[in-house]
Amino acid sequence: MRHFEHFRVGSTYELGTSRLTSEDIIGYARVWDPMPFHLDPGAAARSSFGGLVASGWHTGAVVMGQFVRSLLADSTCQGSYGMDEVRFLRPVRPGDELHGRAVVEEAAPHPRRPETGTVHFLVEASNQHGETVYRMRTRLLFGRTRSSAPVRQEADAHH
Amino acid sequence: MRHFEHFRVGSTYELGTSRLTSEDIIGYARVWDPMPFHLDPGAAARSSFGGLVASGWHTGAVVMGQFVRSLLADSTCQGSYGMDEVRFLRPVRPGDELHGRAVVEEAAPHPRRPETGTVHFLVEASNQHGETVYRMRTRLLFGRTRSSAPVRQEADAHH
Repeated sequence: MRHFEHFRVGSTYELGTSRLTSEDIIGYARVWDPMPFHLDPGAAARSSFGGLVASGWHTGAVVMGQFVRSLLADSTCQGSYGMDEVRFLRPVRPGDELHGRAVVEEAAPHPRRPETGTVHFLVEASNQHGETVYRMRTRLLFGRTRSSAPVRQEADAHH
Repeated sequence: MRHFEHFRVGSTYELGTSRLTSEDIIGYARVWDPMPFHLDPGAAARSSFGGLVASGWHTGAVVMGQFVRSLLADSTCQGSYGMDEVRFLRPVRPGDELHGRAVVEEAAPHPRRPETGTVHFLVEASNQHGETVYRMRTRLLFGRTRSSAPVRQEADAHH
């Protein structure tokens, strides 16, 4: 079980590989992002993309799934504040692979909740050609190990 | 068909209403974000959330779907650069409604692709109590109407 203390600035985690088929791309788009260039190969061929491309939200969700399964599910993560600088850098096309990666950019105890700490991650995905196709930053809240978290003032009052 | 010129700074669009059931929340989490507090009512009850909460990515995807269906699918939108300042402001719990809203914050012709223009939207969702639960900013590229887009230099060369 990974606590706040597990995450050191500069640590890099490989999150796994996912390959998106045209069925995956169209299936996601039908439910969540029904733009013609995500949904309809003919319309996509006539669009500025020149063919079917994955929704950026699909790419982001796939990489989030990698992040959760490889790192966060077995941790004291208590949720996310959100994301910054989410960028869809290159089109993701049928057959493309997504290799996710997370790098710890900052880690600090929470100023008002001493039993927790905040970790800032840079999350990226590259394709099978080594090109970065997706990037974002996110701040996650983690519980701290008992030994490193100071005793809370409120708890002291009960002693 | 909405072109770049349709979008005026300050224009506000109501995107619709979606209600999330616990089945929706668990179903999304199982595929895309299998954290215990999105997936397992018992574990969620013991978490800092005190009960099941929707994945922030789920909330974002639902609101993106509202945005696409109510506004973008019938437009010349050519895709998104990404998002900034994505914030999960309050938990979204089973039975909660998401009322999406998009406001045009900036609109400018593209500096190098005169047949297109960029529109900056603030996208928010409030719940059934009027509380804002989700917010993000996104930049989208739209095609311009023929009449307002200047003739391209490259096209002139063929005359």
